[in-house]
Amino acid sequence: MTLSALHTDLYELTMLAGYFDRGMHEQPAVFDLFFREPPFEGGFAVFAGLQPALDYLQQLRFSDDDLAYLEKLSIFDESFLQFLRGFQFNGRVTAPPEGTVVFPNEPLLTIEGTLAESQFVETALLNIINFQTLGATKAARITLAAAGAEVIEFGLRRAQGPDGGLGLARAAAIGGVRRTSNVLAGKLYNLPVRGTHAHSWVMAFDDELSAFRAYADVFPDSCVLLVDTYDTLKSGLPHALTVAEELRARGHELKGVRLDSGDIAGLSRTARQMFDDAGFPAVRIVASNELDEERIAAIGEHGGKVDIYGVGTRLATCAGDGGGALGGVYKLVSLNNRPRLKTTSDPAKGTLPDKKRVWRATAADRMFLADLVGLSTEETPDQAAFAALAGPKGSCTVSDLRRTVMVDGRQTASPETINEMTQRAQTQLQSLPNRYKSFDDTDHYPVHTTAELKNLNDKLVKEHRQNP
Amino acid sequence: MTLSALHTDLYELTMLAGYFDRGMHEQPAVFDLFFREPPFEGGFAVFAGLQPALDYLQQLRFSDDDLAYLEKLSIFDESFLQFLRGFQFNGRVTAPPEGTVVFPNEPLLTIEGTLAESQFVETALLNIINFQTLGATKAARITLAAAGAEVIEFGLRRAQGPDGGLGLARAAAIGGVRRTSNVLAGKLYNLPVRGTHAHSWVMAFDDELSAFRAYADVFPDSCVLLVDTYDTLKSGLPHALTVAEELRARGHELKGVRLDSGDIAGLSRTARQMFDDAGFPAVRIVASNELDEERIAAIGEHGGKVDIYGVGTRLATCAGDGGGALGGVYKLVSLNNRPRLKTTSDPAKGTLPDKKRVWRATAADRMFLADLVGLSTEETPDQAAFAALAGPKGSCTVSDLRRTVMVDGRQTASPETINEMTQRAQTQLQSLPNRYKSFDDTDHYPVHTTAELKNLNDKLVKEHRQNP
Repeated sequence: MTLSALHTDLYELTMLAGYFDRGMHEQPAVFDLFFREPPFEGGFAVFAGLQPALDYLQQLRFSDDDLAYLEKLSIFDESFLQFLRGFQFNGRVTAPPEGTVVFPNEPLLTIEGTLAESQFVETALLNIINFQTLGATKAARITLAAAGAEVIEFGLRRAQGPDGGLGLARAAAIGGVRRTSNVLAGKLYNLPVRGTHAHSWVMAFDDELSAFRAYADVFPDSCVLLVDTYDTLKSGLPHALTVAEELRARGHELKGVRLDSGDIAGLSRTARQMFDDAGFPAVRIVASNELDEERIAAIGEHGGKVDIYGVGTRLATCAGDGGGALGGVYKLVSLNNRPRLKTTSDPAKGTLPDKKRVWRATAADRMFLADLVGLSTEETPDQAAFAALAGPKGSCTVSDLRRTVMVDGRQTASPETINEMTQRAQTQLQSLPNRYKSFDDTDHYPVHTTAELKNLNDKLVKEHRQNP
Repeated sequence: MTLSALHTDLYELTMLAGYFDRGMHEQPAVFDLFFREPPFEGGFAVFAGLQPALDYLQQLRFSDDDLAYLEKLSIFDESFLQFLRGFQFNGRVTAPPEGTVVFPNEPLLTIEGTLAESQFVETALLNIINFQTLGATKAARITLAAAGAEVIEFGLRRAQGPDGGLGLARAAAIGGVRRTSNVLAGKLYNLPVRGTHAHSWVMAFDDELSAFRAYADVFPDSCVLLVDTYDTLKSGLPHALTVAEELRARGHELKGVRLDSGDIAGLSRTARQMFDDAGFPAVRIVASNELDEERIAAIGEHGGKVDIYGVGTRLATCAGDGGGALGGVYKLVSLNNRPRLKTTSDPAKGTLPDKKRVWRATAADRMFLADLVGLSTEETPDQAAFAALAGPKGSCTVSDLRRTVMVDGRQTASPETINEMTQRAQTQLQSLPNRYKSFDDTDHYPVHTTAELKNLNDKLVKEHRQNP
């Protein structure tokens, strides 16, 4: 999908016009994109959105039509509009690969280029990375809660418009929820698509049993029956069992039943027992109805026997603590090769100066120990240097979390498949100690700052206090 | 924007294949789209999304590429894929115009057509209407809380992807928040665009005063200064005042200052006082930082002096009670000219049968009294009939809430402008008594059911209990 250059906040253009007017637009600049709190009040995030972000940067151009609109606004002068006519992104991008588990206050994307090009792309990059990372994180939490049960994403009808649904399906796949009801997402991202029937199928027949029989006739080998149109216990499950027996008599097996209302934990136990007793241990129990990680965990705690969770609204809207948004921000950290920082009276809104590197220390058993943020001029700390910073942690390897992914406005490596990103996220989540993965009261994963970065920061804060 | 025919849940296709296999796909069907609870635990919703929904219905076709993908899934047989090749929507749509204030359990869209065409469009219609109506409702609540102050939408960076941001800007405009930072939305929907500068502008200069002076130089007549990069009270506001004086000396006036952190109510009072005392009563106070209707109302209650609210994340993500989603559903109410209903053991998930009309009773002073849902075969009730149903309410007029907007798959009237929709919403919200507009503990607006509809419903419920 090609994004319009006008897919931005007006202030990116007014600032750009200002820098152009002052002759500052070609100064070399560095911006960091990062977040200050993990979404959903959790302990981690799953980074996603890099490839769509790089696609945006590579194709960024103002069309004649865009420029005609901007001219009509009567804000910008002719020389600036002429500048925009040739405007494109020719900068450098450093980032972790998608599916990387990341933490607060670590630079995710670092964008280097002229002040013009690196400032202008702020809104679009935040829009892409915030949503993709949020969705991948939500899906990862849901996958953790499902504890090995399958999860299907089917939130399209409650997503933020068509592309909100499509983008969510992509993000969810990276976070671990690869199966989706969204046919277009299946096609574009090569994801397995899933779906059976709605209540309306049952209502279209004279009675529930006729509806079930008809569906089993059409799809004898992939038949999952929705059992709550009238009464799950009194009619839905008994009718499904009848159809299971009829199917078997014809050489087929009922695939499953879907519970969509009521006490899912209790109903799933009843359904499991019923099908087991009747000799149908392979019939799978699917559950849906406003599920998310906390409700799935509760079903597990209450002895639910669910094989497959269908997750819709609360995944599609990324509902949960923290209000359904990742608060990613984009901050100037260097201009004209001089470090910059923001030291507001609200300490939660400060930034760390200058171009940085991020390292992760991993123990011999592959568990993550801590991350380090330092200056880009620093060497990778060895085990001893890491221990001096983060306290002794035993044997570990320290490696860069990020790599250069774009140089001179061109992507430097082939795009990854969604599947590669999913695998990375699953592997990394296994390396993240459980105490950082609980849904509430989680511990905070340690992200340390090197002494050099700390010293630079303290020095700049002091200078700013003297001359704000 | 053209939506793919694959923009749907897989089960719409499996059901369609089932109806096709059974020879039921050409049976005449009626579906209602409605919601059961107002979003944000409020008392009303502002209906939006009709025009994008009609656009979708008019252009719905399966491309060769779509069909090739479906064939690869190995779920569908050749005759069904051949049927899809010629598939389009040729049905009829009844709906209120966008910007209409609507309530739970009223049919919003009614879709009539063959079972195939009217079932298939479910997911796309829900996706469009749910999000647009949710966003318009959130914006209407924010507009009410702002109590006459201007509101600007600037949530693009936290929206659900590019089109999530664009769609939200459209919905917000219908709900009353017409000003936006989103340049593309401004261009496509003819909305006023707004924006000034970010913290990075200030950080790009050696000190805050230099940054403010430079911005005022470039935009002397539209300069709004962001005053919290370092310290709002100690540096931001004093520097802004200096610039206001310098601008005036050159024949210009500072437009405003923006507060983006801290105690907005208190800071806005201080800022107002400072500029008033210095002879700048026209400098406008802009406030932002995680605002929504409840926080705006709180700023008002604490004596805040805010002229313009910038609303981002919580509007863009439709954050709030109820989890950021409108739970619109799409239910079969008639098939083969026989009424249908869903009577589940969960009474909150039932549906009202058959094709319906919706009327609204309005008092002589233009205030809304109550809505009525009846069968499509019923006459519009007169004042006496209304009083018999809803209790005596004095003189009133009763009129249809909805109209036919599509016949044989073609839209019957010219599309409205967003501005017309905004005006309708504002007029209707003025006609909605205050007791239905509070943000919590709201009264429930009366939506009555006619005796004929109630009798039909009771009869069908009884039949289903006897033969589920």
